[in-house]
Amino acid sequence: MRVIVDFCIIPAGADISLSGYIAECQRLLQDAKLKHSLHAFGTNIEGEWDSVMDVVKRCHMRVHEMGAPRISSTVKIATRTDREQSMEDKVSHVESLLNG
Amino acid sequence: MRVIVDFCIIPAGADISLSGYIAECQRLLQDAKLKHSLHAFGTNIEGEWDSVMDVVKRCHMRVHEMGAPRISSTVKIATRTDREQSMEDKVSHVESLLNG
Amino acid sequence: MRVIVDFCIIPAGADISLSGYIAECQRLLQDAKLKHSLHAFGTNIEGEWDSVMDVVKRCHMRVHEMGAPRISSTVKIATRTDREQSMEDKVSHVESLLNG
Amino acid sequence: MRVIVDFCIIPAGADISLSGYIAECQRLLQDAKLKHSLHAFGTNIEGEWDSVMDVVKRCHMRVHEMGAPRISSTVKIATRTDREQSMEDKVSHVESLLNG
Repeated sequence: MRVIVDFCIIPAGADISLSGYIAECQRLLQDAKLKHSLHAFGTNIEGEWDSVMDVVKRCHMRVHEMGAPRISSTVKIATRTDREQSMEDKVSHVESLLNG
Repeated sequence: MRVIVDFCIIPAGADISLSGYIAECQRLLQDAKLKHSLHAFGTNIEGEWDSVMDVVKRCHMRVHEMGAPRISSTVKIATRTDREQSMEDKVSHVESLLNG
Repeated sequence: MRVIVDFCIIPAGADISLSGYIAECQRLLQDAKLKHSLHAFGTNIEGEWDSVMDVVKRCHMRVHEMGAPRISSTVKIATRTDREQSMEDKVSHVESLLNG
Repeated sequence: MRVIVDFCIIPAGADISLSGYIAECQRLLQDAKLKHSLHAFGTNIEGEWDSVMDVVKRCHMRVHEMGAPRISSTVKIATRTDREQSMEDKVSHVESLLNG
């Protein structure tokens, strides 16, 4: 089952700057060779359910290892059975309607 | 790694009443013997990461089987390493502050 | 426009225990005389759009005043035009399907 | 109070393709002259609290007018009092750590 996910991780009780934690999660996504795209409020990830969720779990574990005692993350998950759709398709379809 | 999750599943392109889908997900949670609590905007679930995420995946699969071609869900995930905390602890701690 | 909201506020860079912040937000909800229900991962609120969103804003302002320099909150918003539905209706409808 | 928001709107009971609804919301954002950036799972918006939330409300109203009887949206809201930060700052700071 393919999935498009939006992942936003918020460590608490640690460094007030979250950039270091988020950069480390980007590295885990790169290592997992999952298509992903960082935006100002999270990261879009595309792939097979198990692969994507495995990285989400490893991000929690890694951010705890980095010193954050509490983590709260939000994972939005989209699945569909009617047709395949990529992250780029979703954006470009809206943009074509705006510019069409 | 123990986790407290808030799970909200929104099927689209199907029956406008979502109660049937949500009731079916409650049955999957009961079958998995995971502690859970339904509220007006989702379900809180407590357990081991893998067990909880496995049910989330099975809910997506089951709701697709029931006829919904598109699903968008939101999974909020809380983990902590400083101490154990149950769903009931979280609510009762706030209530004790309000009534104290 | 009536709305059912799920509100989850996460202060960062402050006290690691979030209960004090959440209790204060509950007091603001009580003062606003909005129907609300605390659960383990947020608070359901029901009312008119402007009244509900006004309290969400005042929660952010109050939690900043209490000393949290950063806040990240998640507000899920449900509106519908086909019929009225209360928070209790949503839960009881699912439960009647489970027990029916 | 300045805010960075991530807004994801999910109409239900209507057209299974959501692109038309999302394009219309982009137009409302453009009309409001708010800085915004579409991604595969929502739209980041930056501005004053009241201006941003007013557009979120108008998106709900407009999507109902377009024929969707039910809407569920997720609004993630970030505020901070320690310093100003733009949407671009958040992304570029993480990227500089990755490439540094």
